[in-house]
Formats: sequence, structure tokens, C-alpha cells
Amino acid sequence: MPAGLVISAHAADFVWRAGGAIALHAAQGWRMVVVCLSLGERGESAKLWREPGMTLERVKANRRAEAEAAAHVLGAELRLMEHGDYPMRVPDDTILALADAIRELQPSFILSHAPGDPWNFDHELTRRVAQEAQIISQARGHNPGLAVAGPTPVLMYEPHQTEWAGWRPDVYLDIDAVFETKRRAFEQMGAQEWLWDYWTRAAAQRGNQAWLNGGRKIVHAEAYQRLFPQVATTLG
Amino acid sequence: MPAGLVISAHAADFVWRAGGAIALHAAQGWRMVVVCLSLGERGESAKLWREPGMTLERVKANRRAEAEAAAHVLGAELRLMEHGDYPMRVPDDTILALADAIRELQPSFILSHAPGDPWNFDHELTRRVAQEAQIISQARGHNPGLAVAGPTPVLMYEPHQTEWAGWRPDVYLDIDAVFETKRRAFEQMGAQEWLWDYWTRAAAQRGNQAWLNGGRKIVHAEAYQRLFPQVATTLG
Amino acid sequence: MPAGLVISAHAADFVWRAGGAIALHAAQGWRMVVVCLSLGERGESAKLWREPGMTLERVKANRRAEAEAAAHVLGAELRLMEHGDYPMRVPDDTILALADAIRELQPSFILSHAPGDPWNFDHELTRRVAQEAQIISQARGHNPGLAVAGPTPVLMYEPHQTEWAGWRPDVYLDIDAVFETKRRAFEQMGAQEWLWDYWTRAAAQRGNQAWLNGGRKIVHAEAYQRLFPQVATTLG
Amino acid sequence: MPAGLVISAHAADFVWRAGGAIALHAAQGWRMVVVCLSLGERGESAKLWREPGMTLERVKANRRAEAEAAAHVLGAELRLMEHGDYPMRVPDDTILALADAIRELQPSFILSHAPGDPWNFDHELTRRVAQEAQIISQARGHNPGLAVAGPTPVLMYEPHQTEWAGWRPDVYLDIDAVFETKRRAFEQMGAQEWLWDYWTRAAAQRGNQAWLNGGRKIVHAEAYQRLFPQVATTLG
Amino acid sequence: MPAGLVISAHAADFVWRAGGAIALHAAQGWRMVVVCLSLGERGESAKLWREPGMTLERVKANRRAEAEAAAHVLGAELRLMEHGDYPMRVPDDTILALADAIRELQPSFILSHAPGDPWNFDHELTRRVAQEAQIISQARGHNPGLAVAGPTPVLMYEPHQTEWAGWRPDVYLDIDAVFETKRRAFEQMGAQEWLWDYWTRAAAQRGNQAWLNGGRKIVHAEAYQRLFPQVATTLG
Amino acid sequence: MPAGLVISAHAADFVWRAGGAIALHAAQGWRMVVVCLSLGERGESAKLWREPGMTLERVKANRRAEAEAAAHVLGAELRLMEHGDYPMRVPDDTILALADAIRELQPSFILSHAPGDPWNFDHELTRRVAQEAQIISQARGHNPGLAVAGPTPVLMYEPHQTEWAGWRPDVYLDIDAVFETKRRAFEQMGAQEWLWDYWTRAAAQRGNQAWLNGGRKIVHAEAYQRLFPQVATTLG
Repeated sequence: MPAGLVISAHAADFVWRAGGAIALHAAQGWRMVVVCLSLGERGESAKLWREPGMTLERVKANRRAEAEAAAHVLGAELRLMEHGDYPMRVPDDTILALADAIRELQPSFILSHAPGDPWNFDHELTRRVAQEAQIISQARGHNPGLAVAGPTPVLMYEPHQTEWAGWRPDVYLDIDAVFETKRRAFEQMGAQEWLWDYWTRAAAQRGNQAWLNGGRKIVHAEAYQRLFPQVATTLG
Repeated sequence: MPAGLVISAHAADFVWRAGGAIALHAAQGWRMVVVCLSLGERGESAKLWREPGMTLERVKANRRAEAEAAAHVLGAELRLMEHGDYPMRVPDDTILALADAIRELQPSFILSHAPGDPWNFDHELTRRVAQEAQIISQARGHNPGLAVAGPTPVLMYEPHQTEWAGWRPDVYLDIDAVFETKRRAFEQMGAQEWLWDYWTRAAAQRGNQAWLNGGRKIVHAEAYQRLFPQVATTLG
Repeated sequence: MPAGLVISAHAADFVWRAGGAIALHAAQGWRMVVVCLSLGERGESAKLWREPGMTLERVKANRRAEAEAAAHVLGAELRLMEHGDYPMRVPDDTILALADAIRELQPSFILSHAPGDPWNFDHELTRRVAQEAQIISQARGHNPGLAVAGPTPVLMYEPHQTEWAGWRPDVYLDIDAVFETKRRAFEQMGAQEWLWDYWTRAAAQRGNQAWLNGGRKIVHAEAYQRLFPQVATTLG
Repeated sequence: MPAGLVISAHAADFVWRAGGAIALHAAQGWRMVVVCLSLGERGESAKLWREPGMTLERVKANRRAEAEAAAHVLGAELRLMEHGDYPMRVPDDTILALADAIRELQPSFILSHAPGDPWNFDHELTRRVAQEAQIISQARGHNPGLAVAGPTPVLMYEPHQTEWAGWRPDVYLDIDAVFETKRRAFEQMGAQEWLWDYWTRAAAQRGNQAWLNGGRKIVHAEAYQRLFPQVATTLG
Repeated sequence: MPAGLVISAHAADFVWRAGGAIALHAAQGWRMVVVCLSLGERGESAKLWREPGMTLERVKANRRAEAEAAAHVLGAELRLMEHGDYPMRVPDDTILALADAIRELQPSFILSHAPGDPWNFDHELTRRVAQEAQIISQARGHNPGLAVAGPTPVLMYEPHQTEWAGWRPDVYLDIDAVFETKRRAFEQMGAQEWLWDYWTRAAAQRGNQAWLNGGRKIVHAEAYQRLFPQVATTLG
Repeated sequence: MPAGLVISAHAADFVWRAGGAIALHAAQGWRMVVVCLSLGERGESAKLWREPGMTLERVKANRRAEAEAAAHVLGAELRLMEHGDYPMRVPDDTILALADAIRELQPSFILSHAPGDPWNFDHELTRRVAQEAQIISQARGHNPGLAVAGPTPVLMYEPHQTEWAGWRPDVYLDIDAVFETKRRAFEQMGAQEWLWDYWTRAAAQRGNQAWLNGGRKIVHAEAYQRLFPQVATTLG
């Protein structure tokens, strides 16, 4: 069974940015695993914090429940870590554990955040963590008993304000077959309702651009930047 | 029959830089068409000009013969234009004719030069010409009687000194199946013998990099940068 | 009466990309002048060309009528030139005439296209033309009888696929007060109906980003990149 | 009372690079607060260290006294921290404290260092610290009892060798009204006398460039790069 | 006798930007040749045009006289062309003639303008012309009777607003030995008196930066960016 | 006796990338010191780890022996540190010790890794460590008893996949006089035999490019990017 791995900063990032890819491959029988380094409890839960008497534990519980519901809709396994947010800090043990997870899963691709994001250092850090884990997963001297991973492609999903994040889309992924599922996953995220329409429109913009570049009608798409070059056996 | 189009500045550029892709697709039954905007008679024929009594006509004849021999080895149709070199100048009529050629051929991809090249303005101009022809080929109001082309992908092959040309390889193409053919095509180019080994080594370097990125043994490869984003139905 | 100048490649570009700025300033009593270098008759009128028996003259007439209707809705003066499209070519006389127009109008700003656009060379050319006209408008030895212009700011509006055009938004302009007008202008452009929703969504995405950066609710915005640095008397 | 915040690496950086902005806004009744993360005692006090028998404590006392005198001249409140220099290291507690200071002050802008500086890692680190504090200051879950800050603009002042620091001036600030004050602040910095003239000339160069871009005579200016896009209600 | 070639857009550019290099090498017995493609009569003679009754011919005569006086002070041969300015347009014949001049002079280096300049398209065009001439000068098939040139290094001198021109200084040239000469050359340029102090301060800023990078006292310097990589026999 | 310092991530990097520079200067009587921050035991010893029963200690011993043999061939002093690899982590004490080593050695140049490397975070970290040590070595307040260092030039040697590492060669160093020695050093590195030919071909490619840029025959070269601008007394 082929597999894909998503390494997301906060509990909801994977839904908005990579929900289509997750649902698409899951629907084709892939094992899709999503790791969130943080619940996003401090910086990405503004709506919850506006409620009177809110506590950190209630925010976390809410975020956890929403993320699990969304992952369930998309067909993904969810692994929630708690490395905090605003600021997130990730110890080396987590990087090594992610390297082992890559080896165990042997994913065909890893999805994570953009190269930079001036509004969100947690996102940039998560991409670095994902990248370093991918590098270590190939080192034969790291846990030499385990089978090493190959050079897994890493694709970086769309940040909120793309042009300031040093991000450029290399690949438009047609997600028309699963867009309704993706939208349903959005609707599990009650704490960030304002993003439902934002990312629905984003999918439509990328769909239009995919149409222009691909020459056949596509309504909704997701966009990804590659972190490494591709290897191909044909240019067609 | 699928087709590919190569738009090359000088008569030999296509051999060194895209000979593998040409031979590979030709061997699979593709129609491969190579257009050279110039014979490279002034700036890329130093060896010939060192012979006593050399004339422009003899240089051109020699370049034409060599290019045809190389195209024959690779399995490509060759169309030689004479827009001069050092400097090359290309009239709008040629751009429009190329747009029509794209429409007629309906290629799956176009190969051409890198975004810049501080040592060779003809290369940069050729890429601009190829790109503008591709743009015009999609315009319904250009020669409205003809069927328009779709958004043909353009891939830019490797320049001589990559890091100064703003070029970065997005795709490594495995050419192991045809490398002997590519090398044989090199050997038709007697006027630029010093490049045989240069580009043989380049293919080996790219082969090694392809191996590292692809996780399976590749000995010889070619490298291409995409001018437009890809459209995909899977990330696997 | 303060004035603003828009230098647009094709007859409709100004509507999608700068319609909000035009309507906003026009509503405040500014004189807003729009120059289109081309009608976009060959490359941006696909819907018309799909009609049986269409001719170049009918396409042009249609484009002219639509552009005039849209300019009327926005409150702008329209000056239509015919320098063709796909490819556009602009003679020096036009650049000099634009320099004189800048001197005559003494605009507070000039709006034009992005620094690059791999899908549309006409856009890039138009920006170069606008920039060169702005440069010449300040040269005391050009038409020395006329009053020179000052260093007019040039702002580049949003291209279709921003990340590949080397464009980054420096300024988000709140267009909530005039968005209905902008949408009404869209609806004059029958030949490009597919763009109505595309640019409505784009305005909403920029509105959300403006909200995030400005700290107060903005629903629709336009985005601009500056071609020159600003001069300020306060940072507040 | 509007407020501005300067987050400076070493005790004197704010004087050379942002002294004009500080004096200008202070003179208009703003509360201007300057935080220095370090006294610059090891790497930016060469003149003092050349004196025989110099000690770290004497250098620090000297730097502290000079910085206070300069802040007094400019009309700013000064907060000196001691995170060392060459190398500076900043604990997370300081970042969180800065986030709280931003919330308390609710500044209209934050001034800090350039995106990079190959000669000075402390500068780059300080900009990162300022940026992360600004991000955290907006997170509702960080110290949820406190009022959050809005999206405060961050402007990066001029580094010493601009072209190698990835810095480009987006805004020229006219400081003619306060240049004598800025120069007087320079003269409090006895340990770095060689910089008085350097930054006086720099202000004159930026003044000339401001003149060229603004169209009215400006003699002295400071230059700033924006870290985030602007939000505007007019382009005029 | 070693030689150097300067290819300048307007009659005075070489003085401000490369006057030190010219004087320095001339003083060491080099043959220094300066080619100006234009007199700068329209766009760089504002002071003259403010005089009542000024004519184009008088401006040109004045510019010619000033440029000759400055070249004389610096010790350079001057070749003035008249390709106009604002806008400058350069025919291919001039490029070919420059290629022949490079062959005849066999310079050790060519100095010209920066890679871009958003305020001055003539400068960017001149750099392209210089670069293309250098390329052609090496083509054995161009005027095959003449001895070809080698790969002459091209260095790009400082533009007015460096950070917006894509220019970065690779080399600081110590001009202390000839700075008084350079200043004297400035003073020949009566039509641009406002630049005397601007470029005197620029030389002092670069001098300080040269000191910081070189470790020995330098008061005045010029800065250059290389267009091609260097070839060396030692790194010391 | 002049000196050069190489700061290498893993035990073998200095051989492939800078072995020519080391041998060249050593042969001319320079003191060449190589510091390796890691043995490369986990991530760069794949061949060893494929042997049955391999242990970390045996890998380290093997790497140490090979590095010493190679350094001996090249004529360098070797200092091996053990900061691990995949991932490498470097404490501040090491950075301070390197600053002191720079002061003690007073090298004419420091060689280290490229600005980035998406496949190898240890390389990027090593460059940062080398750069920070160079910065601190100039700070008079760091270990004020010791003589400070001047502004030592840092040159970054070639990474494996140059175009993705943000690296561009500023200097081609002719290593023809010592290439046989460099190749002999390669052959000491039994654990990475696949790299012998890779870097032999790389030297030939750079040799060809050096020839093209220098105008005289060079067969093998190394390539370096400068981290700081040069200071020169002539452009010839």
C-alpha cells in the first residue's frame, strides 16, 4: 500500500492546504499519515479565546477534536504532538522520531510548509524539521538496524500570503474528484470558520490556473512547490 | 503519433543539451522536430575558422552537414534557419512561423535554452522567441482559420555555466537507454570536438544527481528547468 | 483636480486589475485616464473567435465597445491605441507621446503591469513602455518647451499567476467602497465572462490579506507593487 | 499618545540608523521606546578596548552612559538588556517579554535591523527576535488576560553594507527637521567616533535619493525596508 | 602598454562612477579609452535647460566640452558617440564597431553600467551593448581577418540607487592615490554640479567599507560588480 | 609563513571540494589547517554501514584514518572534532574556540561550505559556524588579551548540486599543478569511492570553464564563491 506523509505545524494547517491531496490519495487506497507538531492552541484559535472563561485545556481539547474530525473526513491517520505554538520549539528527539517514522512508512512523498512565512515562524520551523527528518532518514548510520528510507520527495503546500513567503507553485494538483470532501473537512474546523471561504476561493483560483496550464477544465486545485528536483523517464 | 519540438539557437546546441531527450522519445516512436535559428557560423565554429583560407560559405556548409548528420543519428527532423549569430537577430515573421509550426505539430513539449546566459545572448534570445511563439500559438485571433495549440510545456535545457545563467534543474531525465546514441551524435560535430568530453562528463554528473534524487541507479541524465508549472492528477 | 494614469496592455486589463483604484479615485473627484495599447483582439478574445464567421473588425468593435462601457462605469476617460497583441509591438513615437501625456496630466501615480509574466509578453512590454515614458517625462531636454513632470510613482497591479511573474504586493488598497462598481464594470466585458468570478475571488483574497495586515475589517482589496521607493514625512 | 518601538541589537545601532525617526516622532509628541538587546561591549567598542587596562565592566558602563545620553538627546525612553554580543544569544523569555511590551505599548510601528548582514549575526538575530515578538503579540492564547496587539508594521533600518544584506529601501523618511538633533546624538557616542561622519554622509545620500524620488528638496533622510505589505485607502 | 576600456551611456557617467579607476590606471601608464554612447543632452543636462534660450546644439557643445575636459584630467582618450538619450537607441553597427574596438585595444578589462536601473533605461541598454560587443569580439567568424579578443572581464560600476538596480559590489578599488584627480574631474562637469558632493560622499562610503573588508586604512574607493567569474592561480 | 584555514563539516568534504587549494598552497610553503566538525560517521559512510557487524566506533576509526591519510597527501594539518552528523549540533564553545584558532593562525583565507544545501543541513550549519567564528575573531572585547584577527576573506567551495544551494562560482582556481595530488587524496577515501570519479569530472568541468573565462588552457580547476567583497589596488 503506497503511503504519503504530511508534516503540519498546527492542527488545522493540513486541512486548508493539503486536504485535497490527502483525500485524493486516501480515496485511491493510499495510507495517508498526518503529523501535527502543535495543536495551534495559542496563536490559531482566536475565536475560542474570545469566549469568556476559556482555558488552555479547553482550547486544546477543542482543537484536538476538530483535527480528528477533519482527518477522519479526509481519510487520514492523525498524530498530534504538543510542541506549542507562537512560538513553537522542537527538540532533536522529535526530529529523530520523524526520521524513524519516515523509514517505517516509506512514503512516496512528504507534504509540509513553505520555505518562509514572515507572519508565522512556526510554519518555517516545521518545514525545516520535516526536511531535516527526511535527510536523516537516509543516513545509514542513524539507527543502523532499521531499513533506511530513499530520497523521499518533499512538496511544500501553499502559504497564506504566497508572494512574501518565497513560495512558487511548481505543481497544480487537480482535486475536483474530492473537493466536496475537502470542503466537508473545512467545516469540522469551527474555531477557524473565517478560513472556510478563504481556502475555498484559493482552491478555485488554483483550479483556474491549472486549467490554463493544463489545457483541460479543472475547477479546484491545490498548489505545491518542490523542495528537490524530479527524476523522470519521459518529458511527455 | 506524439511529438516534441526543440528550438535551438545554433546548429549544434540541441545535440549537447537535448540529444538524450530527442533520441529517447524518437526511439519510442515520437516525431521529434528540431529547429535551429542559426548555423552558428560566426561564433561557434572556431576550429573551422582556424583553417587557412576558410570562407563563410564553407563554414556554413560544414555546420549544416554536421547538424544533419547528428539529427539523423538522434532520429530527428531538422529545420535549419539562417538568422545569423554573434549577434543573432530574429524578425517577427519567424516568431509567427514558429507559432504556426507549434500548431501544426501540437507537440507535448518544447525544449529550448535557459532563462539567461551572460556569455551568449543568442541563447537567451532563442528562449524568448520560443516562449513568444508558444504564447502566440494559443491566441485564437492569430490565423483564426488554424486550430490553436494548447498550453505546451516549455523545458529549458542546460546552459554551459549553469549558476550564472539563472538556471536550476527541475527535472533529471534518465537517458541511459540512449546515451550511446547521444555520444554518437556528438561525434558528428567535428567543428566542436572539445565539447564531446565536456558534455559526456555533464551527462555523468547529472546521472549521479538523478541517482541521488531518484533512489535508483542512473548513470547518464539530462537536466531541464520548467518555464511553467506542471499540472498533475497525483503527487505519487 | 488630482489625476491618475493607467497604462494597460489590452482593452480589459485595467478593469480586472485596477478597476477598484480607478473607481475609488474617480468617486473622490480625481481625473482618471486609462490608456490601452491594444484592443486585445487576437489573444484575449477567445470567446468571440469561437463564434462562426467572426472577423477581426467585429472583434475589435466588440472589444472597443466593452472597454468603453467598463470605463464609463468606473468613471474613467479611455484612450484606445492599436498596437496589436500576441505579439504587441510599440514604436518609439508612442513612448514619446505617453511621456507628453504624463506631462500634460501630471498624475499623482501611474498604474501598469507587473515586472514579468511568462504567459504574456504584451504585459511585460507595456510595463516597460510605461516606465520609459515616465523616465522621459522628467527629461528637461525632451520637448523643452513643455513643463516637465516630477518623479511620478508607478504601481504595478496584480498579474494572473503572481508567483511566476516576479511580483509581490507592497500595498493593499481597500476598495470596499467601490466594489459593487468594479463588479459592474466586470459585467460589461462579455468577451471574457470567465474572468468575472476569478477577479471577484481575487479581490476577496486580497481583502482578507489586507484585513490581516491592517487590523481592521476589509472585504475586498486590490494589490500593487511599487516600482520605486516611497518618500514619507512620518512612519506612522 | 501614539508610540513607536525600536528593537536594536547593540546600544548604539538605534542612533546611527533610526535616530532621525526617533527624534522626528518624539518631537511630535510620540512616546518612543528603544530596547537594546546588548550593550555591544565586545564587538562594537574597539576604541575603548584599545585603552590600556580596560575591563569589561568599564566598557559596559561607558556604553550604557553613551546610549543613555544619546537616547536623551533624541527624546526616547531607553531599555538596556544584556544578552551579550559577538555572539549575542537571546532566550525565549526575552522574546515573550518583548511581545508583552508590544502589547503594552501598542506601537504604530516597530523599527529593527535588516533581513541579513554577513558581517554581523547579532543584527540578523535581533530582527528575528523583533519579528517573532511581533507575531506572538497578536496570539490571543499568549497571556490571554492581556489585550492583544494588532498587526504592527515592522520597518528595517539601513545596514552598514546594504547590498550584501538583502536590504532595499522601500521608504525614504525626510529627517531634515531633526537632523541637527540626530547629529548631536551621534556625538554622545565617543566610543564609535569614526561612525559620526559615515552616518552623516549616509543621511545626505539618502536625502538626495529622497529628493529624486519625491520631487521636492530633501537634504537628509533615513531609509527603511518594510517587512510586511502596507494597507492603504488611497494611492495618492 | 596595457589598456582599459570604459563604455559609458552619457558623457559624464564615467567621471562619477569610474573616474578613480581611469585615473589610477592612466597614472600607471595604461592606455585608458572611454566611449560614451550619448552626450546625455536631453535627460542629464537639467541645469543647462533651465537657462533661457537654450538650444539642443548648445547643450551638446557644452556636454562635449565638459566631457573632454574631464577625460583630459583623468588621462583618458575620449570617443563621443551620439545615440541620443531618454531614450537612447543603439544600432547593431555600433555594437559591431565596439567589438572591433575591443579587438584593436585588447583591454584587460571593460567597465560599464549596472545590470539594471529602474530610473535609467539608457544605463541598462549600455551595459547590454557593452556585453554583446564583448561576446562578439571573441567570435572567430566575425571579421575573420582580425585577431579575436580573449574573454575580457567586464566590471559594472556603481549606479545611483544601488539596491534597486540589482547591483552588489564585488570589488572595492582603493583610489586614494588619485582621489584629488577624480575630484578635479568632477569639477569640469558644470552642468551637474549637484553630483560633485554626492559622488565625493559615495567614494568616502566605499572607502570606509573597503577599510572594513581589507583591514587597512582606505579613505576613498570605487565599487564594481563582476559580470563574469574570475580565474585565479592563488586564493591568497 | 602564510596560512589558510579550512572549516569542513565532515571528515572528507575538504578533500573533494578544496583539496586542490590545500595542496596548491601547501606546495608553496603555506601552513594549511583543516578543521572537521564531524567525522561524518552516520550520514556519509554508507559503504561501511553496509558491511555486516559494523559498529559506530569502527566507522569512526575508519573515517579518522582516511581523513588523516588524505590530509597527509595534501600537506595539511588536520583537526578532527566530533560534533556528530545527521544531525550535527555545534555548541558555542566550539565557535569561540574557532575564533581563537583564527586569531592564532591569522589565515589569509578561510574555506568552508556553500550558503545553503537542501540535502545537507550539516554543511549549511558549518558555514554559519565558520562565518560566526570569523566575525568574533575580529571583536576586540572577545578574549581581550589576544591579538584580534583582521577581516579574513571566506570562500565557499562547491556543493554537490550547485544550482539548488544558492551557490555561484566567483573564482575558478587553476589546480593543474596539483591535480595528481588531489586525485591521490581522493583515493585515500575508501568509504566514498563513488565520489572519486564524480569530483574528478567536476574538476574537469570547472577547468573548462576556467579556460573559457581566463583565455588560457586550464584542465582542472576548483570553484569558490566569496562571502564578502574583495579589496583591490588594481582592476587588471
